[in-house]
Amino acid sequence: MLINNKSHQTIWTEPADKNKVYVIDQRYLPHRVEICTLTNYEETCFAIKNMIIRGAPLIGVTAAYGVYLATLTAVEGNFKEKIKTAIHELLLTRPTAVNLHWALNRMEKILQNYPLNKIKEAAFAEAEKIKQEDILMCENIGKHGLIIIEEISKRKKGGPVNILTHCNAGWLACVEWGTATSAIYQAHKKGIKLHVWVDETRPRNQGANLTAFELLNENIPHTLITDNTGGHLMQHGMVDMAIVGADRITANGDAANKIGTYLKALAAKDNNIPFYVAAPSSTIDWKLNDGLKEIPIEERNADEVKYVEGLHNKEIKSILICPEKTPAANYAFDVTPARLITGIITEKGITTADKKSLHVLFS
Amino acid sequence: MLINNKSHQTIWTEPADKNKVYVIDQRYLPHRVEICTLTNYEETCFAIKNMIIRGAPLIGVTAAYGVYLATLTAVEGNFKEKIKTAIHELLLTRPTAVNLHWALNRMEKILQNYPLNKIKEAAFAEAEKIKQEDILMCENIGKHGLIIIEEISKRKKGGPVNILTHCNAGWLACVEWGTATSAIYQAHKKGIKLHVWVDETRPRNQGANLTAFELLNENIPHTLITDNTGGHLMQHGMVDMAIVGADRITANGDAANKIGTYLKALAAKDNNIPFYVAAPSSTIDWKLNDGLKEIPIEERNADEVKYVEGLHNKEIKSILICPEKTPAANYAFDVTPARLITGIITEKGITTADKKSLHVLFS
Repeated sequence: MLINNKSHQTIWTEPADKNKVYVIDQRYLPHRVEICTLTNYEETCFAIKNMIIRGAPLIGVTAAYGVYLATLTAVEGNFKEKIKTAIHELLLTRPTAVNLHWALNRMEKILQNYPLNKIKEAAFAEAEKIKQEDILMCENIGKHGLIIIEEISKRKKGGPVNILTHCNAGWLACVEWGTATSAIYQAHKKGIKLHVWVDETRPRNQGANLTAFELLNENIPHTLITDNTGGHLMQHGMVDMAIVGADRITANGDAANKIGTYLKALAAKDNNIPFYVAAPSSTIDWKLNDGLKEIPIEERNADEVKYVEGLHNKEIKSILICPEKTPAANYAFDVTPARLITGIITEKGITTADKKSLHVLFS
Repeated sequence: MLINNKSHQTIWTEPADKNKVYVIDQRYLPHRVEICTLTNYEETCFAIKNMIIRGAPLIGVTAAYGVYLATLTAVEGNFKEKIKTAIHELLLTRPTAVNLHWALNRMEKILQNYPLNKIKEAAFAEAEKIKQEDILMCENIGKHGLIIIEEISKRKKGGPVNILTHCNAGWLACVEWGTATSAIYQAHKKGIKLHVWVDETRPRNQGANLTAFELLNENIPHTLITDNTGGHLMQHGMVDMAIVGADRITANGDAANKIGTYLKALAAKDNNIPFYVAAPSSTIDWKLNDGLKEIPIEERNADEVKYVEGLHNKEIKSILICPEKTPAANYAFDVTPARLITGIITEKGITTADKKSLHVLFS
């Protein structure tokens, strides 16, 4: 996807030196585009934990490359142990996204079949495969989502389709296309008139920092709003649909996504506006049946709430927005119950958010 | 109320020189406590428009003092014209708060009865009266709200009552006590265990800047959260009640308040949590019957969304949180329909949010 009119992915290796994995350092966006180099699994853990990279699909892909990087220094005798440790530590980096578990399980299973002299190649191939699958999945999610946008566009006789999105479920959360944004990009490429309301998404402002940056670079009309604004817009007919991503979806269709998603889903329901969750099937945790009770919600550092980062005099600064002694709480995700979700857009098609329909689609 | 253990009001005059009106300059809180001096109605307009002072009740009181300041320079021949102009310009400073209209209408009516040689004294007396009435109203709102908190405290067998509030409907929005916070302060003084969840309230962060500052200075346990968080807390039983203020209430009980209030009301309804609006009766606009259609919603400068103010190296700085070219929209209020409001707490008592009950209470 485009940054300054040049095509990018969020994670890649160079053919000349496969011992390094490169990622866009998302901590400095939109103000600076920096590349971060990962050379071992410890650095990969750091990158995930400190949100150099973020977004459920990209976390999964990056973790897979982390396992590959762990194989580079595995030596005879300890290699199984080393890979096990790497997988264990990568698993602990973030608690909510199920893609992380999924990608690591897959790497673990595959690598069991290989002896030491084959394991690096096998790990690299599998990480690459997971990455390519992610791109294809996102593209397919977009193809299905596009149908919904096309229908609204027809109903509005070509008038702009107003789409609200929360957080960043864009290509920066994946490898390319994004999940929630994939349909938006594909609709834009087809010439459908669009306008995107971008929730800033406090505390880390992924909407303001990343989604706005993506849309600006792809030249898609958009407007930044505070997280408080979506309800008002919906009450006044200024939103035609909402699409968000998901970090984990239960077998019955409850969806964990960035904190605040639940509030937008409530407002959409209250105003009869379709509310879609777009996510690859790897986001579905088939073992869980009650999102509110069973999905662990990450609590992050309170300073992310008390301090805001942004640009001042061309430098990225962190400012305090409350009394220094005021305590803060930082729940990173919330769960939107299935009853508030119009449909889940996956790479295999769109399904209503209930156990039976999800099973039918994926069986 | 307390700032650094010293008692304060938001607006006052000194007996020695009644030609000046002093207000706390709320733009620098919580980082610096500065006093702003108003000497004419133009400065008063500036103070209201630029949010040196804010909050529906305080806007009304300050506007009344603005009319008084206009009388100071009124001279024979033009004095009625001058006062009319002052009232007209003060009226245009903020569109949503009905208290502004109410206070200015009251000043206009009273001053009609006085000749030039009496008008300054009359204007001063009326502004003081409006101020004293505001203090008493807030105290009475708190007395009624206290009953609700006491009941929850009893039900929880003295365990802390968790109260969520949005924006600042505290004493900084009034003269003393506050509206939504008045019951909280009175409960705290009675020794009832409390904990307040403070919505930061983007874009201007009045929760983080002002409510947290008030509660910290009054030594009331509180936790700052992003505006996205309240729904999650309510889903998990961590909120016992919500209390917010209002900028305008229609005759049928719809309430305009800071943008994002509607989302919290939806979440409260969805989780069976009582949601109260606390406001003086001057907030009720008896002419209006449909908040969504009839209450004008102020649109403020987009830069309030794109830039955030806070403290960096002991200086207040403004940082950009999105790409410079990204457009933003800044709706300052939203309307919470009466059906989502458990009760309206006024100085005369608590009423359900419907036309009949409001009329019964105030007839």
